[in-house]
Amino acid sequence: MADQKIYQASTTAPVNIAVVKYWGKRDPKLNLPTNSSISVTLSQSDLRTHTTAACSASFPTSDSLLLNSSPQDVTGARTQACFRELRSLRAALEASDSSLPKLSTLPLKIVSENNFPTAAGLASSAAGFAALVRAIANLYDLSSSPTELSRIARQGSGSACRSLFGGYVAWQMGTKDDGSDSLAVEVAPASHWPTMRALILVASAKQKKVSSTSGMQTTVATSELFQRRAEIVVPKHMEEMEKAIKEKDFEAFGRVTMMESNSFHSTCSDTFPPIRYMKLFGVKWSILLTWSSDVSWAAVGVVEDINRKAGKIVAAYTFDAGPNAVIYYEEANTDIVAGVVKGALGSVSGWESREIKAQASDVLDAADVEVLKRGITRVILTQVGEGPIKTEESLI
Amino acid sequence: MADQKIYQASTTAPVNIAVVKYWGKRDPKLNLPTNSSISVTLSQSDLRTHTTAACSASFPTSDSLLLNSSPQDVTGARTQACFRELRSLRAALEASDSSLPKLSTLPLKIVSENNFPTAAGLASSAAGFAALVRAIANLYDLSSSPTELSRIARQGSGSACRSLFGGYVAWQMGTKDDGSDSLAVEVAPASHWPTMRALILVASAKQKKVSSTSGMQTTVATSELFQRRAEIVVPKHMEEMEKAIKEKDFEAFGRVTMMESNSFHSTCSDTFPPIRYMKLFGVKWSILLTWSSDVSWAAVGVVEDINRKAGKIVAAYTFDAGPNAVIYYEEANTDIVAGVVKGALGSVSGWESREIKAQASDVLDAADVEVLKRGITRVILTQVGEGPIKTEESLI
Repeated sequence: MADQKIYQASTTAPVNIAVVKYWGKRDPKLNLPTNSSISVTLSQSDLRTHTTAACSASFPTSDSLLLNSSPQDVTGARTQACFRELRSLRAALEASDSSLPKLSTLPLKIVSENNFPTAAGLASSAAGFAALVRAIANLYDLSSSPTELSRIARQGSGSACRSLFGGYVAWQMGTKDDGSDSLAVEVAPASHWPTMRALILVASAKQKKVSSTSGMQTTVATSELFQRRAEIVVPKHMEEMEKAIKEKDFEAFGRVTMMESNSFHSTCSDTFPPIRYMKLFGVKWSILLTWSSDVSWAAVGVVEDINRKAGKIVAAYTFDAGPNAVIYYEEANTDIVAGVVKGALGSVSGWESREIKAQASDVLDAADVEVLKRGITRVILTQVGEGPIKTEESLI
Repeated sequence: MADQKIYQASTTAPVNIAVVKYWGKRDPKLNLPTNSSISVTLSQSDLRTHTTAACSASFPTSDSLLLNSSPQDVTGARTQACFRELRSLRAALEASDSSLPKLSTLPLKIVSENNFPTAAGLASSAAGFAALVRAIANLYDLSSSPTELSRIARQGSGSACRSLFGGYVAWQMGTKDDGSDSLAVEVAPASHWPTMRALILVASAKQKKVSSTSGMQTTVATSELFQRRAEIVVPKHMEEMEKAIKEKDFEAFGRVTMMESNSFHSTCSDTFPPIRYMKLFGVKWSILLTWSSDVSWAAVGVVEDINRKAGKIVAAYTFDAGPNAVIYYEEANTDIVAGVVKGALGSVSGWESREIKAQASDVLDAADVEVLKRGITRVILTQVGEGPIKTEESLI
């Protein structure tokens, strides 16, 4: 009779928000990017995916994945690539030590939960694939480093590779065709610059999102400015950003963060047809690139007002392929950044998670504040945080 | 006793709307651009500046300019440059023929009227400076060609140089430091492709415009994508557009027109701080780059819907540094372009100027139509037209 034991391991993994943006694949199948990127890993106290990976001969024969109690399709090429790569590493272990149980041959059961609303449009796939890969690696007792695992997680979701580290993380684009050098590395741990804070303005999303993959590949194919971004602008920003992080120079960090966000969104509007109303195959798909919408512009205005008042860059906005604004600032400037925003938007939910003293917000443009009051549903207060954390708490 | 005679000459001059955009000066004083551009001259039946230039020893000693009955400052460097250059050409004539009256020494009185609301945010300075230069050249009996005069008008307002020609006009950026080769030339006369139509959706403007000069120079200084636009993208578009015009190939014309507009606005949003909310010298100036606003995006959506329905490019949007959409189309497609828009926006004013049969507009996205109904105050129906026209009708 076969071993009916259930083997399992659990982990949590963080969300990361890029300050040098990933947009464009040079190989869509392997998720190889056209440029390197850098992100800040956010604290798992506020945003995390919790995943338990289990395997057993007693499970149904096909692999399964439950996310927030709802069954997910695991037959897609991206999930399959992660399963295959991890099984292959486990099989190599088993081949070298015959005393090990043959976990690589058993069906996998993955159970995942996010501690934040998936609908909020946060980078949930990054945390999700990082947790999936990390949990299975733990289950399989792999000795692979986070950088080695990042190669696998990248094939699930490009930006997931950066969620295998805490702190400040670079995804080196690599040059090889097989993607073996397209990996995440640590720029600096969270402890190097622990005072980095993030205030996320979560916009009420009314539009449906088209997959980033379609969007970015249309940009690569049609934007005539994109090549300069990939070849000249991003390499310069990578260098400046690594230096800013190493020197804990917030003004440089903030300037590059904002210019990067602008640059990325500019190549989106230079896409043909421009990304925001994408119409592909005769179907009208609206993409959440509402950077260009009033809500996002109002968030830009608020950050510019705060910086003007401070006389220097103390806050930096960044937008992914969605309308949420992430505003980075340093702890010492909590009052003049988060406090001022709370003074204006204190009535939306989310402020209760940290002690922020509301400040006078008359420095902010009244029209911007009005637009934000109407367009923001909640705020999330968080900060730089650690990479995946092993946990004994099982979801099975 | 001095000659008290009043010498005068009158002209009208057209508006032009660029299909390859001018944005960025390599010499702000001489209005020398960082790239060449191409425009379509619009019919003066719909949009024109009418200008009378007069001079007399009986006039007050200082030059004067009246625009729509309101006195204008003529001491600015741009207006002065035009006066100086034209007087110098006249003085050369007088030196070669002593029988000519010494008009170059007399005070100038310029009276101008636009047949369209200046507040509509149309390219009034182009028509204004073209009319001013053409009228004074007529007054001075100069034999200068439109291209020679374009060198002078360019110093008044860059895009004015293109309004000295009808039809399809290129402004060759030139390479010389003194700007002597930065001139407008005819790509094709209006008669070559007379079926080009333009439907202008005039947006209700609530924001104040910052001068294009400040805006474009900030782009040149801070946009990291701009250089590629100037060096690679625009030269390619210039070539494609000249070919499209010569071959009367509307699909190519439309594609380049839309990609150009997107490219130009993308370098604006890549400007730091991004152009839309410009804050310079501590003052918050809002610029009418509401390309990114809902109204402009809705106009883009309408054009995309029309083209999708047609199965090819029959309409092309373009936006200058303001929210008005100019939609180019060919006469044969009046029903499926202007007719469909009229079907949706028939209640706004401006349709009465031409006979357009309203068509079913169910091909248009209902949300886009709603946004346009709220955001558009009038439409202007016009077409490709002639260059400046001499008139006996005096405004004095």
